Amino acid sequence: MHFSSTKEELLNAIQVVQRAVSPRNPLPILSGIKFETGEGSVTISATDLELGISCSFPAEISEPGKTVLPARVITELARRFPNVKIFFKSDPLNGSVIIQYGKSEASINGYPVEEFPEFTIPADNTKFTISGEILKEVISQVIFATARDENRPLYTGILFEINNGTANIVATDTHRLAWRKILLDGIGDLDINLIIPGKTLNELTRVAGLSDRLDITVAENQVIFETKNISLVSRLIGGNFPNYRQVIPGDYISKTRLKTRDLIEASERASLLTSEGAPIIKISIENSILVVSVNTEAGRMREEMSVYHEGEGLQFAFNARYLNDALKAIGTDEVVMEFTGPLSPVIIKPVEEMEYLSLLLPVRLREES
Amino acid sequence: MHFSSTKEELLNAIQVVQRAVSPRNPLPILSGIKFETGEGSVTISATDLELGISCSFPAEISEPGKTVLPARVITELARRFPNVKIFFKSDPLNGSVIIQYGKSEASINGYPVEEFPEFTIPADNTKFTISGEILKEVISQVIFATARDENRPLYTGILFEINNGTANIVATDTHRLAWRKILLDGIGDLDINLIIPGKTLNELTRVAGLSDRLDITVAENQVIFETKNISLVSRLIGGNFPNYRQVIPGDYISKTRLKTRDLIEASERASLLTSEGAPIIKISIENSILVVSVNTEAGRMREEMSVYHEGEGLQFAFNARYLNDALKAIGTDEVVMEFTGPLSPVIIKPVEEMEYLSLLLPVRLREES
Repeated sequence: MHFSSTKEELLNAIQVVQRAVSPRNPLPILSGIKFETGEGSVTISATDLELGISCSFPAEISEPGKTVLPARVITELARRFPNVKIFFKSDPLNGSVIIQYGKSEASINGYPVEEFPEFTIPADNTKFTISGEILKEVISQVIFATARDENRPLYTGILFEINNGTANIVATDTHRLAWRKILLDGIGDLDINLIIPGKTLNELTRVAGLSDRLDITVAENQVIFETKNISLVSRLIGGNFPNYRQVIPGDYISKTRLKTRDLIEASERASLLTSEGAPIIKISIENSILVVSVNTEAGRMREEMSVYHEGEGLQFAFNARYLNDALKAIGTDEVVMEFTGPLSPVIIKPVEEMEYLSLLLPVRLREES
Repeated sequence: MHFSSTKEELLNAIQVVQRAVSPRNPLPILSGIKFETGEGSVTISATDLELGISCSFPAEISEPGKTVLPARVITELARRFPNVKIFFKSDPLNGSVIIQYGKSEASINGYPVEEFPEFTIPADNTKFTISGEILKEVISQVIFATARDENRPLYTGILFEINNGTANIVATDTHRLAWRKILLDGIGDLDINLIIPGKTLNELTRVAGLSDRLDITVAENQVIFETKNISLVSRLIGGNFPNYRQVIPGDYISKTRLKTRDLIEASERASLLTSEGAPIIKISIENSILVVSVNTEAGRMREEMSVYHEGEGLQFAFNARYLNDALKAIGTDEVVMEFTGPLSPVIIKPVEEMEYLSLLLPVRLREES
């Protein structure tokens, strides 16, 4: 192997793939980045076996080949290279890679390239494409509702229920749920349910540009997202996602429209007086005034804001962090909250017509509070 | 107590004093910030008993008084207040403080104000002043050489040896030493040695502005730094600082002038191939070429740079982190390194005439390397 490239091209690609490196994995090869020459380009890859990322960058190839270099060293080194042409050359004597930059030279000991896990895409697969901009928007709208708890893997994923030319995209940790529906062009009669790990989609939004059109390939238990130069492979989560349609209430008893930022700020301030583990705040609405209040050992707080309210007055308690996650994900100046009963989920959605909402279960209020 | 101020004035002052709060201290009162009204101003204070910081800010006082509020709550709350006038008022019923902002109101439970440690300045003290700009420069030039290890308290401090109208300022962790000498105006025949905790001086550079002239008061075992509105009190470290004059070599055998950034970058790259605990790199100089090299299990590296060298060729090994700390503290484009013997300290100093240098002990090279 012998190639040259610029510091910038090399560093950009390394910063993309190093997000899939698992430095603490017991398999040392997984702390490496694989380099493989192509036609006028080099493709580098990293994987933690759940998620794999590859990225290609332009390079002048003098001699084809491949190698695996330790991710930490090559990443930190690439950051600190001077702005000159960088040459990579396998050392036939000992399998290390000689890197030349200016008048300087490093020789890095690598890993046996044959130990690096291969990405293979089963021939029996399904393909469709989606706009990177829309996919990023959708992910940012639902990802907050996924569970962090790896003991319940199903809830760490996001459901993509694709049929009839649309996709319903759903996340829930059983305390809250976020749902978005989009149209998908040119998918014909594709009918498929995918549960994609939240971590995969989070990494996807970091590495793929907004302007990219993403090619999606689905095989038995994996999904591949591809842009012009980046490819991201992830396992899929097995199991049956809960029936979200059953959970979304149809009719509301009362309904409030309010300024998103006002409620976020009030509930952030109020939660400062609560315990960090359970930041429970009270919300009551009466005569178009919404009151956020807490009363704890640390003190009391009461904030008022004007809202547009239709229906009876009401009182709820919420986990302030969950409420704010939902409010921030909506991203519009105003939101609508629909109330369906004293202990039923509250619906939070944008004022604008959009097939998007999130559900939040209220917390049961104790008598004394 | 009853006063009002703006969010900005309040938040600025809180951000200054909260650096002295010790949230995990077993004494709960030390997790609080004390508020005390003055003439058209409020002074707030925090202390961890080693370091105390006070800051005054303009306020309209309706009723004098004092209180202690939990630092975490009041700091986070101040950050999140809307941009309106903020009113603070003691609640005579239960000793809490009612904070009003716009149409909202919080009531924060405080701590008994009489439990808050008093700053008292002994009448028998010594005063002098120093430019904030110069003090900050001096601190940034020597602080890297202090020890982090609290088991050797003497070396966590910086010596200010003041006499004959000058101050010698010295820090050492016994592996390296940094020394700077400055003139002090108007100190008459003041003759005093202070060992000030590095942590105190670090906080001082964060809270005091460059344009401030600092009034320094020294009492038996404490030192107070004062600007117009900020006061910082610290204990002094007892003991006898090592005799730094004995350690600084007088004459050199050979001398090299080089570009600071070149050597920093080369040794940062080289240390990527070393173990993090002991980033030992080799430096050899021959015929006006300086070579940085390492040879470890991870690989090899060799970088060359042109230097101006007077005297014999030589070879040294250094801890790369220590070397870079010294090079970065100098802050000039070029540095001079003076060599005094194979295992004697190397002197690192700016090219410009300045009474500033640092010493670095080389690492003993093993035969095989």
